[in-house]
Amino acid sequence: MQPTLAAYPKHHKIMIDCNQAIAALDWSKEPQGLYAPIAYALSSGGKRLRMQLVLAGCRLVGGNEQDALPFAEAIEVFHNFTLLHDDVMDRAEVRRGMPTVHIKWNDNTAILSGDQMLIEAYRLLEKVPDTYLPQLLHLFTKTATEICEGQQYDIDFEQRSDVQISDYIEMIRLKTSVLLAAALKGGAIIGGATYGEQDALYNYGIHLGLAFQIQDDLLDCFGDPATFGKAIGGDISCNKKTYLLLSALQQADTHQREALNSWLQLTAPSAEKIESVKALYIATHAREAAEQAIANHTAEALKCLSTLPDNSETRHLEQMARNLAQRKS
Amino acid sequence: MQPTLAAYPKHHKIMIDCNQAIAALDWSKEPQGLYAPIAYALSSGGKRLRMQLVLAGCRLVGGNEQDALPFAEAIEVFHNFTLLHDDVMDRAEVRRGMPTVHIKWNDNTAILSGDQMLIEAYRLLEKVPDTYLPQLLHLFTKTATEICEGQQYDIDFEQRSDVQISDYIEMIRLKTSVLLAAALKGGAIIGGATYGEQDALYNYGIHLGLAFQIQDDLLDCFGDPATFGKAIGGDISCNKKTYLLLSALQQADTHQREALNSWLQLTAPSAEKIESVKALYIATHAREAAEQAIANHTAEALKCLSTLPDNSETRHLEQMARNLAQRKS
Repeated sequence: MQPTLAAYPKHHKIMIDCNQAIAALDWSKEPQGLYAPIAYALSSGGKRLRMQLVLAGCRLVGGNEQDALPFAEAIEVFHNFTLLHDDVMDRAEVRRGMPTVHIKWNDNTAILSGDQMLIEAYRLLEKVPDTYLPQLLHLFTKTATEICEGQQYDIDFEQRSDVQISDYIEMIRLKTSVLLAAALKGGAIIGGATYGEQDALYNYGIHLGLAFQIQDDLLDCFGDPATFGKAIGGDISCNKKTYLLLSALQQADTHQREALNSWLQLTAPSAEKIESVKALYIATHAREAAEQAIANHTAEALKCLSTLPDNSETRHLEQMARNLAQRKS
Repeated sequence: MQPTLAAYPKHHKIMIDCNQAIAALDWSKEPQGLYAPIAYALSSGGKRLRMQLVLAGCRLVGGNEQDALPFAEAIEVFHNFTLLHDDVMDRAEVRRGMPTVHIKWNDNTAILSGDQMLIEAYRLLEKVPDTYLPQLLHLFTKTATEICEGQQYDIDFEQRSDVQISDYIEMIRLKTSVLLAAALKGGAIIGGATYGEQDALYNYGIHLGLAFQIQDDLLDCFGDPATFGKAIGGDISCNKKTYLLLSALQQADTHQREALNSWLQLTAPSAEKIESVKALYIATHAREAAEQAIANHTAEALKCLSTLPDNSETRHLEQMARNLAQRKS
C-alpha cells in the first residue's frame, strides 16, 4: 500500500521518472558536433526540479502528468540551455562535477549548441495539446525573456553602486523565480486548472524562488562547510551584491558602513575579510533581515497554497517550502 | 497609374516598407544592456530580403500582406540573430559597415542579446493567426534547426579533407536556402495557399538560395573588384571549400591535383596563389561547372514558379531568379 500514490486518481499511477525521460531524448542525429554537446549538457543530471514542478502542477489540479511531459521537457532543456550559456559568460569550468561544454569543446561549440538547445526547447513545445499551445507559448517566451533580463541585471549590478534591496529582489525574481513559477503554472494549465489555481501556483513559485535564493546567500556566508559543498564566504570575497551585503549597507551606522566599505576595497582573498564582514552582517542585523525575508517569503508561498485543492501534491509543495527554510545545502 | 499595384486586389494597395516595420519594433525597454544591442543589430539595414519574401509569398497567393507581417518580422529578427552569433564565432569585426555587437560591446553581450533576439523572434510568432500557429511554429523551428546544422557542417568542413560537392550543396541548402524557402512558404501559408503552392514556393526558395550561394563563390573568385565590394580571392587565400575548389579537386587530372594541393599548403597571403588557383579553376572546368550549376538551379527555380498563379508577384520572383544569374555583387 502506497499512501501517496493512492491519493491520485487511477490513471496517475505511473509517476514519470524525470531523469529517465530526459535521458530518452534522442541526440544521436547528425551533425554530432552540434548535438553531442547537448546530450552531454543534459546528461549531468541535477535534481530536475523544474521538470518535477511542471508534473506536480499538473497532478495537483487533477490532470494526467503524461500530458504535461513535453512542457516539462521543454522547461528542463531551456533551463540547461541557460546554464550552458551562463557558464560561457562566467568562464565557469565545472558544472555538477563535470567540465563545462566550452571547456570540453570550445566557446563556439557552446554558443552554437546552446542556441540549438533553445530551439529544441521550442520544438518540445510543439507537442503540447493544441488547445493550450498559444497560452503555453506565451508563458514560455515571457519567462525566457524575463530570465535573460534577470541575467542582464545581474551583470549590470556588478558595475553599479546604487543597487537597492528592491532591485536585488526584482533581479532574483527574474533570474530564478519566474522559471519555477512558470513550470508550476504551465503544468497546471495542461491539467485544466482554473485561472485562480494557475495564479496561486505561479505566486507560490515566485515566493519559493525568492526564499530559495536568499537562503543561498545566507548559506554561502553562514553555512556549515561540511554540508554546504563549496567554500564558505565566496560571495564576500568577490563583493557580490547579495541580500546580506545590501541589507548591511542599508542598516549600517556610519562607523559600520565605513568598515564595510573599506573591506569592499580589498579584492585579494582574505580569511580576515570573510570573518570581519560576517561579523558586520550580524552586527548590522543583516543576517536577521535575511532570515526574516526567507520566513516572509515562505509564509507567502504557504498562503498561496491555502487556496488550492487539499491533496497530497499540495502537501508536497507545502513540505518543500518548509524544508527549504531549514536546508543546509 | 501603377501597373504593378493594379495587379493586386483592392486591400493590397498598402505595400509594407520592411525597413520601416523593423525600425518600428520597440527596444526602449529595460534593461538597455540587453535591448540596446538588439536595436543596434537591427538598425544596420540590409536588404530585408527574407522579410520581403514572406510578404511576397503571401501576396502571390492572394493573401493580405498585413496578416503576414509578424511572421516576416520573426524571420528577419531570427536572421539577424544568426548574423550576430555567427560574427562572434567568426570573430568578424564589421557587418554592413558598422562594428559588430561583440566589438562595440563585448562577447557576453553578444551572446546574451543574441539569445534574447532568438526569443524575440518566437515572441513575434505569437502574433500569427491562431489557425496557422502550429504549422508556422513547426516550420520556423525546423528551419532554425537546419540553419544551426548548416553552420555546424560549415565549421566541420574546415577540418575535413573528404568533403564532396554533394556535401557542400547540402551544407549551403541548410545554411542559406531553407530560410529563403521557409520565408516564402510561411507567407504563402498565411495567404491561404494550397499545399501544392506552398511546396512550389519552398522549392523555388531552395534553388534560388543554392544558385545565389554558388554565384557568391564565383564572384569571390572571378568578380569585378570594382563592383563586388570586397577583395577578390578571399576564399582562395583561406582555402575555403567552395563549389569551385571542390569541383576543381574532383575534375583535376593528376598533374592539376598536385598543383592545387601544393597551393593549398600555402597559407600566407599570395597574389600568385590567387592567380594560379583561378587558372586551375578554368583549366579543370570548375568555373564552367559552377556556372552550369547556377544555370541548373535557376532553371529549377523557374520551373517551380510555372505551377503558381500567373500574376505580378510570380513574375517578380521570376525576375529575381533571372537577375541573380547576372548579378555582379
